[in-house]
Amino acid sequence: MDTFLKSGKGLLLAYDQGLEHGPSTDFNDRNIDPNYILDIAEKGHFTGVVFQKGIAEKYYNGKVPLIVKLNGKTNLPRGEPISSQVCSVQEAISLGAKGVGYTIYLGSAHENIMLQEFGEIQEEAHEEGIPAIAWIYPRGEAIKNDVAPEIISYAARAGLEIGADAVKIKYTGDPTSFRWAVKAAGLAKVFMSGGPKAPTDETFLNQVKGVIEAGATGLAVGRNVWQHADPLKMSSALSEIIFNGKDVQQALGMVVAQ
Amino acid sequence: MDTFLKSGKGLLLAYDQGLEHGPSTDFNDRNIDPNYILDIAEKGHFTGVVFQKGIAEKYYNGKVPLIVKLNGKTNLPRGEPISSQVCSVQEAISLGAKGVGYTIYLGSAHENIMLQEFGEIQEEAHEEGIPAIAWIYPRGEAIKNDVAPEIISYAARAGLEIGADAVKIKYTGDPTSFRWAVKAAGLAKVFMSGGPKAPTDETFLNQVKGVIEAGATGLAVGRNVWQHADPLKMSSALSEIIFNGKDVQQALGMVVAQ
Amino acid sequence: MDTFLKSGKGLLLAYDQGLEHGPSTDFNDRNIDPNYILDIAEKGHFTGVVFQKGIAEKYYNGKVPLIVKLNGKTNLPRGEPISSQVCSVQEAISLGAKGVGYTIYLGSAHENIMLQEFGEIQEEAHEEGIPAIAWIYPRGEAIKNDVAPEIISYAARAGLEIGADAVKIKYTGDPTSFRWAVKAAGLAKVFMSGGPKAPTDETFLNQVKGVIEAGATGLAVGRNVWQHADPLKMSSALSEIIFNGKDVQQALGMVVAQ
Amino acid sequence: MDTFLKSGKGLLLAYDQGLEHGPSTDFNDRNIDPNYILDIAEKGHFTGVVFQKGIAEKYYNGKVPLIVKLNGKTNLPRGEPISSQVCSVQEAISLGAKGVGYTIYLGSAHENIMLQEFGEIQEEAHEEGIPAIAWIYPRGEAIKNDVAPEIISYAARAGLEIGADAVKIKYTGDPTSFRWAVKAAGLAKVFMSGGPKAPTDETFLNQVKGVIEAGATGLAVGRNVWQHADPLKMSSALSEIIFNGKDVQQALGMVVAQ
Amino acid sequence: MDTFLKSGKGLLLAYDQGLEHGPSTDFNDRNIDPNYILDIAEKGHFTGVVFQKGIAEKYYNGKVPLIVKLNGKTNLPRGEPISSQVCSVQEAISLGAKGVGYTIYLGSAHENIMLQEFGEIQEEAHEEGIPAIAWIYPRGEAIKNDVAPEIISYAARAGLEIGADAVKIKYTGDPTSFRWAVKAAGLAKVFMSGGPKAPTDETFLNQVKGVIEAGATGLAVGRNVWQHADPLKMSSALSEIIFNGKDVQQALGMVVAQ
Repeated sequence: MDTFLKSGKGLLLAYDQGLEHGPSTDFNDRNIDPNYILDIAEKGHFTGVVFQKGIAEKYYNGKVPLIVKLNGKTNLPRGEPISSQVCSVQEAISLGAKGVGYTIYLGSAHENIMLQEFGEIQEEAHEEGIPAIAWIYPRGEAIKNDVAPEIISYAARAGLEIGADAVKIKYTGDPTSFRWAVKAAGLAKVFMSGGPKAPTDETFLNQVKGVIEAGATGLAVGRNVWQHADPLKMSSALSEIIFNGKDVQQALGMVVAQ
Repeated sequence: MDTFLKSGKGLLLAYDQGLEHGPSTDFNDRNIDPNYILDIAEKGHFTGVVFQKGIAEKYYNGKVPLIVKLNGKTNLPRGEPISSQVCSVQEAISLGAKGVGYTIYLGSAHENIMLQEFGEIQEEAHEEGIPAIAWIYPRGEAIKNDVAPEIISYAARAGLEIGADAVKIKYTGDPTSFRWAVKAAGLAKVFMSGGPKAPTDETFLNQVKGVIEAGATGLAVGRNVWQHADPLKMSSALSEIIFNGKDVQQALGMVVAQ
Repeated sequence: MDTFLKSGKGLLLAYDQGLEHGPSTDFNDRNIDPNYILDIAEKGHFTGVVFQKGIAEKYYNGKVPLIVKLNGKTNLPRGEPISSQVCSVQEAISLGAKGVGYTIYLGSAHENIMLQEFGEIQEEAHEEGIPAIAWIYPRGEAIKNDVAPEIISYAARAGLEIGADAVKIKYTGDPTSFRWAVKAAGLAKVFMSGGPKAPTDETFLNQVKGVIEAGATGLAVGRNVWQHADPLKMSSALSEIIFNGKDVQQALGMVVAQ
Repeated sequence: MDTFLKSGKGLLLAYDQGLEHGPSTDFNDRNIDPNYILDIAEKGHFTGVVFQKGIAEKYYNGKVPLIVKLNGKTNLPRGEPISSQVCSVQEAISLGAKGVGYTIYLGSAHENIMLQEFGEIQEEAHEEGIPAIAWIYPRGEAIKNDVAPEIISYAARAGLEIGADAVKIKYTGDPTSFRWAVKAAGLAKVFMSGGPKAPTDETFLNQVKGVIEAGATGLAVGRNVWQHADPLKMSSALSEIIFNGKDVQQALGMVVAQ
Repeated sequence: MDTFLKSGKGLLLAYDQGLEHGPSTDFNDRNIDPNYILDIAEKGHFTGVVFQKGIAEKYYNGKVPLIVKLNGKTNLPRGEPISSQVCSVQEAISLGAKGVGYTIYLGSAHENIMLQEFGEIQEEAHEEGIPAIAWIYPRGEAIKNDVAPEIISYAARAGLEIGADAVKIKYTGDPTSFRWAVKAAGLAKVFMSGGPKAPTDETFLNQVKGVIEAGATGLAVGRNVWQHADPLKMSSALSEIIFNGKDVQQALGMVVAQ
């Protein structure tokens, strides 16, 4: 994972929401354009950017290390969630990827299919010398609360057990319970999933601060940056917390009030 | 996609309705014959023609660039839609194809199977240096309105994300909302799906004009041409709008009143 | 398909009913023996004989061109019909086959699996230079009337679209509607499926005459020949209609009254 | 099948009940030990012995020709029966097998999966020059009476059609109806499945006599031998009927009264 | 299995509970760390340690022979249990494994999938010269009592039949019935599954003594060791019973009272 880290910490810009949620849910006239995101990734000093293969193939410019998500789904189908591989490891590498990502809906009735597919991807990625990163989201009828501490730590641990080099998980809500998740992940790096735009900048920066205090490696963020009125200022604030250990108030000072 | 474009615009003649809808639904004594369609494609100056492999193998004459649809289904089965690959990329190329097409029923319970199959096809097509075109039709129990703007733009965006070089989608009904879909598709070319025969020529030409105004690349049309009393005149009218920027009334003048 | 035609017409002897219907339903002490069928095929001047691989391997004598059915099922399971490949194209060829057959239950919930499997078989057969023949029977909960003209013509057209060199379909009941099916099949040859033993010879010969009048290539017949009291006379009657253009009364004269 | 026949007849000792039924249902302190069975097979002059691969690998001594069952299941799961391949043809051969066996639950909702898997096994076995033997047991919700004559003859015929060199089927209860099954199997050899321990030796020997009278090749027996108080005497009785054409009373004289 | 035995007996330390049960169910601040387990395995003189591939890749130090579990699942999904392969045999070997493990939920509606996958793994492992160990747990709607003697002996026998070199099964509760399971396993080695932490040390040691008296090879233990207040003392107690034939009271003397 060193390609995606700076002093052991990481800040990834995620942009697969066009497939996962649809453009009308998450995008506006600016952030619907992948070039806008690439620009933020570069100027905001992100340590990695996350695309599906189509965006990577048509837009990627090589300036920020690339993670290609290898599976994906829309939010349209009903029933137990399943996301299948749509890009091979070889294709991802040929598009410039230095790492690959894969989502596992833990607890889904199709969990075993995704665990198996990730297992194959992880081995292929390691043969190629690149990290395999697991987005692990407990979801489906069996999951009552997908951010309960015991569920989030289970997701983190599952990632370690199946050989993920890093796991992207949701925040539990407080540093103490998230610390347990980080501990469960062991030598697998933990990235908090940014999630939907937080009601205020302070709320979001507090989450990020909690994640870092809990010992996590960093953040994979999308909407809280590229839906922000000033993405670069928010990026700077995140960098200050993640890489420079600043506190929330210091970081907040970098963001223009909304 | 350049093979299928003229000055950056495209007009494709689609003819897989025999499999998708059945001959008794869509055909008459003339247009049931693939040679009739090949004739229209050539004389109507279409930039591409779309066949299933059987038609391509037994009829294709090499005069208009060929897209082979790689999957297909009938409209007979009940339940969540799924269309599986019936022709390999290699076979399509050996039949003369310069591009391949594949339908994805976004929102179907089997969405993941089609996304995965398209993923493999797209990589194989690109290795062979030909474009992969995605017919993206949201369909299934989860889809209440398959031409709602947010659904059509989702289809367009999904196509971009999974690496389609072009997407064929339905019209939203107005240029403004379709422009959003075109924007969502980014560098993937957008073709409107012609759909069933429109009640009047004017209605259809207005749709096409709206599509072009919205910034789309063109049209993949079937029934509105080969069910037309004078397909070549309708083809000319479409060409005028798509390639020459004429308005609807100008184009309408080329079509004999029905 | 030339291997199986005489002056462009064909008469195939089908004998896979042992698997499809069971011996107690269709066989008696004579026709349960494959050698009896081989004898009829030869002496009755059939242009092809259709076996499953087991019969081909243990009985086939090379005298009449062989079609090996590559899939098959019993009539025992409930639920939506599916018939899976039980013989490879290579194996069929090694058993002496000059053509391969495959059944598709159009409209079944498993339609897509059979279309996909046929797609692979068709390509392999064509690489080997032999025809792929599709038995296309609309069946399953979604099919209310499996000999309705629009259903039979759909079956015929589906065969053409997916690359079948010939289709075996049921009779619609009259030459006019069957002519539409033949037209829908285009350059794919159409064989009527003989079906269960007709109540009288005249009834059956009238069907065959109607099929030929409709422009079809011929007949794939089983029970109406090998359940007949005098199979060779019935074979002669069929030959007269199919190859020599005789009318029903002329042909009927060749059959001993039952 | 000659490897497993003596003067055209065969007597196979089946011992896969540990997997199919469990040890507590069928075994006692003696017959739970595979060496006990190997001893019976040798001293009882069986023409073949049937094991799963695990027993073959750890116990087989090469004295009696070996058939390895390639699939298997427990009797624990509910629902439509399915038994999947657990041993490859290559592995079976490396364990010393001179033939392979495979069970098909005809009429099961999963019938097509087993027919397809057997199809592949049969071709691989024939390439290797060894016979493929089909255990064909109609079973599942659709099967009301699994020993009805029309069902047993269907099983026999299905075996012939899909290329089995021998079929193992249950007894219909009388020689007349079983003769029809033997006829349906044609050139495929027919072995009666021994089934559970018969109430008396005479009952069982009468069944075996009926099977031989019906023209079958022999018997694949397990529990009626290795659950017997004196397996070797029962083996001798079976040999007398099968190989020497003795009648039941003569054979019965060889068995100690129980 | 000799790699994992000392004088024919074995004591394996199992640590895949992080994936199977989640960290919050089974772990505390000490045993959540794989290094803690590796330390116990070495100092406690275990003859083998069992990890998923992720733990093996990031922590394994080569000091105690390694078994890599090749499949795994979480306890989150509802429905019939299925655990799919997430690690290849080749990958396990490259991680240092001298044996591979695989869990089969006997009686599950998906039993056949797991039996088939194990079948392939077993052959690949044997080609590589390492043992294949089957965790066999009857589970699912069809299983009323998963430690009933007839169920446990069935599990043991199934392991032998499908070619497992060793089976890991639950304890039946008494040596007499477990002896039957050991007998059913034949030449396959039997390891008792340790299960959840027993209420008292004496309870657990009594189980282990019963297992050894029944003729089993040993124990695969996790929670009863690494959840213990003094894992090394408990390890010594287990060693005394398993390797040195001590009785429970003697062994108990080695464990500090809790």
